[in-house]
Amino acid sequence: MEPKENGNQSDHVIEGPTNPMVTPLLNDLYQFTMAYAYWKANKQNERSVFDLYFRKNPFGGEYTVFAGLDECIKFLANFKLTNQEIDYVRDSLPGSEEAFCDYLRGLDCSDVEVYAIPEGSVVFPKVPLMRVEGPVGVVQLLETPFLNLVNFASLVATNAARHRFVAGKSKSLLEFGARRAQGPDGAISASKYCYLGGFDATSNVAAGKLFGIPLRGTHSHAFVSSFMSTDEIVDKVLHSADGETTCEDFVSLVQTWLTKIQYLPSLRGFFSETNQSELAAFISYALAFPKAFLALVDTYDVMKSGIPNFCAVALALNDLGYKALGIRLDSGDLAYLSTETRKFFCTVENELKVPGFGKMVVTASNDLNEETIDALNKQGHEVDAFGIGTYLVTCYAQAALGCVFKLVEINNQPRIKLSEDVTKVSIPCKKRSYRLYGKEGYPLVDIMTGENEPPPKVGERLLCRHPFNESKRAYVVPQRVEELLKCYWRGSADEAREELPPLKDIRDRCIKQLENMRSDHMRRLNPTPYKVSVSAKLYDFIHFLWLNEAPVGELQ
Amino acid sequence: MEPKENGNQSDHVIEGPTNPMVTPLLNDLYQFTMAYAYWKANKQNERSVFDLYFRKNPFGGEYTVFAGLDECIKFLANFKLTNQEIDYVRDSLPGSEEAFCDYLRGLDCSDVEVYAIPEGSVVFPKVPLMRVEGPVGVVQLLETPFLNLVNFASLVATNAARHRFVAGKSKSLLEFGARRAQGPDGAISASKYCYLGGFDATSNVAAGKLFGIPLRGTHSHAFVSSFMSTDEIVDKVLHSADGETTCEDFVSLVQTWLTKIQYLPSLRGFFSETNQSELAAFISYALAFPKAFLALVDTYDVMKSGIPNFCAVALALNDLGYKALGIRLDSGDLAYLSTETRKFFCTVENELKVPGFGKMVVTASNDLNEETIDALNKQGHEVDAFGIGTYLVTCYAQAALGCVFKLVEINNQPRIKLSEDVTKVSIPCKKRSYRLYGKEGYPLVDIMTGENEPPPKVGERLLCRHPFNESKRAYVVPQRVEELLKCYWRGSADEAREELPPLKDIRDRCIKQLENMRSDHMRRLNPTPYKVSVSAKLYDFIHFLWLNEAPVGELQ
Repeated sequence: MEPKENGNQSDHVIEGPTNPMVTPLLNDLYQFTMAYAYWKANKQNERSVFDLYFRKNPFGGEYTVFAGLDECIKFLANFKLTNQEIDYVRDSLPGSEEAFCDYLRGLDCSDVEVYAIPEGSVVFPKVPLMRVEGPVGVVQLLETPFLNLVNFASLVATNAARHRFVAGKSKSLLEFGARRAQGPDGAISASKYCYLGGFDATSNVAAGKLFGIPLRGTHSHAFVSSFMSTDEIVDKVLHSADGETTCEDFVSLVQTWLTKIQYLPSLRGFFSETNQSELAAFISYALAFPKAFLALVDTYDVMKSGIPNFCAVALALNDLGYKALGIRLDSGDLAYLSTETRKFFCTVENELKVPGFGKMVVTASNDLNEETIDALNKQGHEVDAFGIGTYLVTCYAQAALGCVFKLVEINNQPRIKLSEDVTKVSIPCKKRSYRLYGKEGYPLVDIMTGENEPPPKVGERLLCRHPFNESKRAYVVPQRVEELLKCYWRGSADEAREELPPLKDIRDRCIKQLENMRSDHMRRLNPTPYKVSVSAKLYDFIHFLWLNEAPVGELQ
Repeated sequence: MEPKENGNQSDHVIEGPTNPMVTPLLNDLYQFTMAYAYWKANKQNERSVFDLYFRKNPFGGEYTVFAGLDECIKFLANFKLTNQEIDYVRDSLPGSEEAFCDYLRGLDCSDVEVYAIPEGSVVFPKVPLMRVEGPVGVVQLLETPFLNLVNFASLVATNAARHRFVAGKSKSLLEFGARRAQGPDGAISASKYCYLGGFDATSNVAAGKLFGIPLRGTHSHAFVSSFMSTDEIVDKVLHSADGETTCEDFVSLVQTWLTKIQYLPSLRGFFSETNQSELAAFISYALAFPKAFLALVDTYDVMKSGIPNFCAVALALNDLGYKALGIRLDSGDLAYLSTETRKFFCTVENELKVPGFGKMVVTASNDLNEETIDALNKQGHEVDAFGIGTYLVTCYAQAALGCVFKLVEINNQPRIKLSEDVTKVSIPCKKRSYRLYGKEGYPLVDIMTGENEPPPKVGERLLCRHPFNESKRAYVVPQRVEELLKCYWRGSADEAREELPPLKDIRDRCIKQLENMRSDHMRRLNPTPYKVSVSAKLYDFIHFLWLNEAPVGELQ
């Protein structure tokens, strides 16, 4: 994360966004109508500063994980309209002059600067995630793509972090959302950003390949019901794990174990005949993956069929030196079933003297979310791994984050956007922002200042003011000061700027930052808001500008 | 929509999916582990039939619009794993045999058949939207991509249809969601399927270009606040609409009108000084687009600044033979502001004798959804066009549709998936389905039958049974019988099959079908469920199979 020395990256070409559909046309038409109007008014090159930020943390929480920066920079670095795209834009702006096409043809981001908080950071409302500076004509064309690339990325990363928080560090969290996601890259980007937010693996093969995320997956109910009986299994041979011996009839070996389990003293009468199509499916799966046997046990009846069938196959594998992985539950009362399953495994371990059998992995899937995991925790359960799909990847609890992109300065003139709703008033000026840490190492407050104010100093008392609420202010003596906005783009890939780290490093940053937050900001119920402030000087200026721009009402 | 004659399409190549990231790797890993296990068991070519359907209509409604079929067929037609993809899959399945790679290399959909309900149809729970038949190894690999391509498409098309229903036919509906959508093609596919579901236009330029959807967009708050005053406007010349005359100082013309408005008898004291940066922005925008002037009026104060400024510019344009389009409101009380705006326009029309000025378009856009439009309707408003973003494109009210893909037959053996939750039990057998219409031309009931049962006949009494509830059944005498599943793929693009119609035709079908539904199914409050049934024969078979597969419990 150290800035590269000047020129160090001169032969680096930044590759394009993951999705080739991310082009300058992934844009609202009004960005082009405005570009045309700026150009007509000869304003297109006026130097402008825009802040990208959100106003409210999602999911009723008090924190957000910032994600999507990498894709924004890749988009920026490759920003160029093709002739075909330019023709389409021209045809979409009736009455536009041909010379505007020349302007579009020449557009790139060589005169744009992007400062941003590093991706994977924990971030808060109102503090700019990105500060984008450059000619107003081109910067305006970055608004929609940047918002699109940041909004969902940050939302789903935050959702993942929240799921991790409730599940706890020791559980495996698997993202299983591809089928229910909002379209193809709703799936692929959810996989990417859930991993960033602290998940361990995904089922999504494309995302695994693109981003190096560990993959997980075994089989479905259809696989189980595609078998009729064990008679279908033709090749019954299985070599032992060490290759030394060969079992000629693995099916019979399994059946022998099934009978043994059935007559174990503590399991007598627990189950009678198990489902034969299920047994055949488990055996076939074990023959295909003897080293990685994990079975879905709820196609017919978990305790009377799935678990006994699984144990029989696992014990047969054990005879040949293989260690089965465990089971997956995809329906029913997961607290009850996981606990019963664990008991069953422990009975097998104890009565058949198979060390470790009780520790078999129990994976649960079936419409899980923050609330259901929290409820499972309260009831007590024996789940080791959660496979989470729909609610995670679509951010069902809150399907959108409201990042905005606001003009804060043009031609060195600070600009403010007013609104009757005070939470929608923008904070004007090209700004810097800092995170101030307290004695215990936790972040205490974020503060925004004007660009030319001196930075806060360690050990020096500083007044932090709420940007809009006169009475909310506090003195802080920071023990550490971190400047939040770092340079990620200054005209080209050659210039001195932060590197774009690999996804794994961004994930590490995210996990570390989340761990370093004071716990009252993180809890699910009534979390304490993290404080976001402005300097006294910026406060005064905001309110000066506000009064200046707002019309005086007249009561009638 | 008529089937092509055999061979008619022999030189048609079906192009690939819109998003190049839709490849066979957009898949859950378990589809590949299963493919391997099927292949190891030499089962990979067993003939299987899967149904794709959903269990519950979204948004608390009683209907769904089916969408995404076109993308599924395009995916299917181009289904092929590259060597690089195959290598990645092999590496993801540890212990897999090299010969499996040869199997993957040879995989395509030349032995697959897809029957589907035409895209844009109104559809209901449990009735297969698609029936996919073919070798189990390859059909299993279609599950995740098909679900991904259908789930969000159908969800967002349904959401759009619901917004259209509440807004009414006469309003313009504009999709403005690109910035808040779930990723890049969350945006692009939302634009596509909102249009399909009855929207008129989108702001999304990429979607406009890809699918020929009409585009809309003017300017943002940033454009307004990027101006400081009218002094900035250098080129003030505007030629009249007919090219005959030239106004050398359009700024002065506007200012003259502003003063006139201010002193109109019924507006005296209504406003004093308007915001000068806003006025400058409106004038600049009008100079750029004199034929399409539409202004965002809420950057400072709608009634005291935005509307008077707009009217002044519109009246100046009117002098030169141009007709301004209208305004957009993006905040505040839309019912009140739109009504006040309309009054203002009418006052201008009447007192300044400008015919048609009162009919200026009022567009509203601020976090709109079904509920807010419904509330506006109840309050009374003067909005002509709604620009809808976040809630529409992310399907905020319900962010996922739960389509599933279930095995219903393999090797001519019907299969059933049981569940303790009866709504999750699958309907076995390769089936046909029909929509039966009543005397008044409305659809009455959908009925599924076994594949070889004779089809329902017009005028003949038929028993329709609820698939799982013994007591729910009814006789129907259909006046029209429509077979729902049509062939969209039979091994190749050459074979006789339905055409993939252009998006506009799919949209027309959707609008027509929605209009042809009985109104009690469509209403927002307590809609009547549309009936979905099975034939008596299929009913009996389902329950025979169910009893056969379910273990008999023992009360203890």
